[in-house]
Amino acid sequence: EFVCCRYVSKAAAKPQVEFDYDGPSMKTTVPGPRSKELMKQLGQIQNTGAINFFCNYEESKGNYLVDVDGNRMLDIYTQISSIPIGYNHPALLKVMANPNNLSTFVNRPALGILPPENFPDKITESLLSVAPSGMTRVQTMSCGACSNENAYKAIFIWYRNKERGQNTPTNEELNTSMINQAPGCPELSILSFMGGFHGRTLGCLATTHSKAIHKLDIPSFDWPVAPFPRLQYPLDEFTRENAEEEARCLEEVEDLIVKWRQKGKPVAGIVIEPIQAEGGDNHASPDFFRRLRNIARKHGCAFHVDEVQTGGGGTGKFWAHEHWGMDDPADIVSFSKKLLSGGYYHKDELQPDKPYRIFNTWMGDPSKNLFLSEVLNVIRRENLLEEVTRSGKALLNGLYELQAQYPSILSRARGQGTFCAIDAFDDATRDRILLKARDKGVLLGGCGDRSIRFRPALVFKEYHVNLFLNIFNDVLAQHK
Amino acid sequence: EFVCCRYVSKAAAKPQVEFDYDGPSMKTTVPGPRSKELMKQLGQIQNTGAINFFCNYEESKGNYLVDVDGNRMLDIYTQISSIPIGYNHPALLKVMANPNNLSTFVNRPALGILPPENFPDKITESLLSVAPSGMTRVQTMSCGACSNENAYKAIFIWYRNKERGQNTPTNEELNTSMINQAPGCPELSILSFMGGFHGRTLGCLATTHSKAIHKLDIPSFDWPVAPFPRLQYPLDEFTRENAEEEARCLEEVEDLIVKWRQKGKPVAGIVIEPIQAEGGDNHASPDFFRRLRNIARKHGCAFHVDEVQTGGGGTGKFWAHEHWGMDDPADIVSFSKKLLSGGYYHKDELQPDKPYRIFNTWMGDPSKNLFLSEVLNVIRRENLLEEVTRSGKALLNGLYELQAQYPSILSRARGQGTFCAIDAFDDATRDRILLKARDKGVLLGGCGDRSIRFRPALVFKEYHVNLFLNIFNDVLAQHK
Repeated sequence: EFVCCRYVSKAAAKPQVEFDYDGPSMKTTVPGPRSKELMKQLGQIQNTGAINFFCNYEESKGNYLVDVDGNRMLDIYTQISSIPIGYNHPALLKVMANPNNLSTFVNRPALGILPPENFPDKITESLLSVAPSGMTRVQTMSCGACSNENAYKAIFIWYRNKERGQNTPTNEELNTSMINQAPGCPELSILSFMGGFHGRTLGCLATTHSKAIHKLDIPSFDWPVAPFPRLQYPLDEFTRENAEEEARCLEEVEDLIVKWRQKGKPVAGIVIEPIQAEGGDNHASPDFFRRLRNIARKHGCAFHVDEVQTGGGGTGKFWAHEHWGMDDPADIVSFSKKLLSGGYYHKDELQPDKPYRIFNTWMGDPSKNLFLSEVLNVIRRENLLEEVTRSGKALLNGLYELQAQYPSILSRARGQGTFCAIDAFDDATRDRILLKARDKGVLLGGCGDRSIRFRPALVFKEYHVNLFLNIFNDVLAQHK
Repeated sequence: EFVCCRYVSKAAAKPQVEFDYDGPSMKTTVPGPRSKELMKQLGQIQNTGAINFFCNYEESKGNYLVDVDGNRMLDIYTQISSIPIGYNHPALLKVMANPNNLSTFVNRPALGILPPENFPDKITESLLSVAPSGMTRVQTMSCGACSNENAYKAIFIWYRNKERGQNTPTNEELNTSMINQAPGCPELSILSFMGGFHGRTLGCLATTHSKAIHKLDIPSFDWPVAPFPRLQYPLDEFTRENAEEEARCLEEVEDLIVKWRQKGKPVAGIVIEPIQAEGGDNHASPDFFRRLRNIARKHGCAFHVDEVQTGGGGTGKFWAHEHWGMDDPADIVSFSKKLLSGGYYHKDELQPDKPYRIFNTWMGDPSKNLFLSEVLNVIRRENLLEEVTRSGKALLNGLYELQAQYPSILSRARGQGTFCAIDAFDDATRDRILLKARDKGVLLGGCGDRSIRFRPALVFKEYHVNLFLNIFNDVLAQHK
C-alpha cells in the first residue's frame, strides 16, 4: 500500500481537538450489514435512494462520524455542511445539562406573537453578534428554504412599496391578490444564476438551477437566469481570462434586467451565493460581486446574498461575503445549516411595513439559538476562524500537489478556508473515488457534475488535513 | 360583577390536570410594563406589530401561560394551536432528563442521507402509529409550509409520471426545466378554496386565500380558486340549505377543473382543510368531503387534506378527516403544529420515483419526534381524545347558551371537539372582546373577519371549560 511520505510526519502530530478520536477505523465496507438491514426497514416508509448509511450519533465525536456497523469515518461533509463544531461537542452537551434551558426545548413558542422573555437578549448575543456589515435586523425562520422564501417576500413587499410611494394599496390590489391575479399579485421576478442553489420550495426552486432532477415536473415562474462566471483555476493564474468571463456575465445580467422590465416582470431582487455550492463550487472574484452589487443598486433591485451553505465560518471568515471587503455588501443575507436554524438579516428598509406580512407559526426555534450561542463562544474562544484559514491552506496546497501528481484524475482544485473542492475526470470517476475514500474511512460529498466538495467542521485541524491527504493519496494511487 | 351561576358549581370541581394551576391570576393589564419594555428592545431588531406579550415559559404550566409581568392566563390559543398537552408537561421534561436522548438534540442529522439508527423505529412508534387510513408512508419536514410545498411537489411529480407513462423524461424536458420553462416546468395547478390557508411560502401562498395582507405584492400562480361552502349553523338545523350550498360549490369545483384543463393548466391536485381555520373556522359536511374526494378521483387529481391545524386531536379524533368515516379519505395528508414538526403521509403511488426529488438538508428534526412519541403516549394513557370530546361538548353547549343570552354580540357557535369558534357582531367587537378576556385571564385567538377561535391543548378539561365560560360571561355582560 502506497503512502505519500510528505504527510506521514505531520499526521503523527497530536490532535488538538480533545473530544476527538485519533483516526478512522473501518470494520466493514459501507454501507455495512446493519445499515442495509435498516435501509430495508426504512424502505417500507420512505424512498431511501439517497441514504448513505445509518449513523450512531451517540458514539460520533468531533470530526468523526460513527456508523451502525462500528465504522468510524473522518467526516469532511458534516451533514451537508451543517455541523459547525463537530459531533457531541462538550459545549453543546452542557447546554442540555443546564436546567435553566429545559423549558426552551419543551415549550416551543409562536415567536411572532408570544416570544420568551430572553428572546431579544438571546438573538442579540447569538445571531446579531455576527450580523453582516450594515445590518442590525434579523428575522429567524426554521430552515434554509423558508429563509429564502421569506427573504424574497420581503424583497417583493419592499419593491412594491417603493413603486407605490406613500399610497396605500388600492381595493383592486387587495381584491385581485385574493385570487392570485395582478395587480395584487404582481408579475415581479428574482434574477438568479445558472448553477445556483437556493432551496427547493416553489419560490426558491424558481431560482435554483443546479440539477434538472430538482426542478423537473414542478411548475415555476418565468424569472430571468443569468450565466455565472465559469472561471479557470487557480484564480490568480488566469486573472485576465477570468475578468473577461465575469464582464460577459455582468453584461448579461444588465441585459436581462432591462429585458424583464420590458416584459412587464421587473426584477425586484438579485439572489446569489458567494460560492455556488451545490452547483459545483464555482467561485467569482470580489470585483465581480462589487460590480454586481452596483448593478443591483443602479436598477433598484435588492441584492440578496444567500449564505446558507457558505455562512458560519467555513471560508475562514464568518460570512463568505466578507472576503469582498465591502461596507455595504448586501440588502439581505440569508443563512441556515451551520447556524443551526434559518433566517435572514436585512437592511432596515427591507422590514415589512405591517405585521403578519412575514409570519408563520414558529418563525424559528429558540432551542437552536441556545446552541448557536455556544457555538459562537467556542468559535471565539478557540479562534476557529484562524484555524480554518490555516487548515484550509494546508488542504488546498495538498490538493494542488495531488492534482499535479494525478493530472489525469484531478483538476481545478479551488477553495477559500476549508470550503474547498476539486474536480474528477468525469462523474463516474468522482463517484468511484467518493466510495473508495469512504471505505477507507473518509466521508466526502459531491457537487456539480464531477466535483468533490470539502465541508469539514470548524474543528478540522491541520492534523486532520494530513490524515485525509494520506488516505486520499492511497485512493488515487489505487485508482485505475 | 356578574357571574353566571350555572357554571359556578362546576367551576369548583377539582382540576384533573395535576401539573396545572388552579386558575388565572392577573397582576396588570396585558401587555404589562415588562412586556412593553421588551417590545421596545425587540423593536430594534424586528417588526413587533404582531406580538401580544412576552412569556415566562419556565413558570407556565398545563393550560396556563404566564407572562413576564406575572400574569397567569388560561390559554385557549396554545401558540396558534401548536402545544398538544400543555406547558412543561412532566412527560416531556422526562424526555430531556433521559441521557440516552442527549445526542438526538445535539447532533441534528441530514435525515435524507445519514439517518440515526433509531429513525425507522422512532417514526414507526410516533408518526406511523397515528397514520391516516390507507397510508403507511410518511415524509418528515421541518414546518407546515415546507410540508405543503413538498406535498405539492410530490403531487406534480406523480401527475407528470402518470401522463408520461413508462417513458423517461425527454432531453427537452430536462433542459427546459433548468430555465423554468415548459415542458420541463409544466403549467400544472393545484385547486384550492377561497378562505383556505395552507402556508405562506410562494407555492403554499398560491393556495392560501384567507386575508389579502398575506398575499399582497407577492407573485403567484394562475391556479383555480373554488368557493368553500358558507354554511349556516348549527349544521343540523339547516341541512337542506347547507346541502344546496355544498352542491353549488362542488359544481364550481368541477367547472374549474374542466376550465383549467382547457386553459392548458391541468389541476394535478386539490388541497383542502377539513375545517378552514385561519379563514374563519368554516365547516363542511362529511358528505361534501366524500363527494369532493370522488370528484378528485374522477378527474385524476390527487386529493390533499391539509391537517396542519386540525390534526393532533383537537376535534376529538386524531385527524379531523376521521369524522368523514371514509376508508380512503385522501392521497396525501399534511401535518405540523401539534405534531411538533411537519411532514405528510401519502399513498404509495405518491412516492417520487427517484431520490433527491423530495429532499432538503434536514428533512425534519428527530428531536421533535422524541417529544411526539411521548405526546402520543400521554394521549393514549389519559384517553385525551375522549376528554376532548367531553370538554368540547361542554364548550359548544356553553357557547350556544351564551349566544342565546347575547344575540346582539354573538352568533354562529360551531365546532368539533374543542376545535370551536363563535362569531362576534363585527371585527371591532371581536377584537375588543379578545382584549377584555385577556385582561381577565383568558387567552383566545381570532380568525376570519370576526370569529373567535378556541384552540386549547388536549388537557383542557370540563373544569377549564366552565372556568372559561364564567369569565367569558363576565366579559360579555360588561360589553357595551
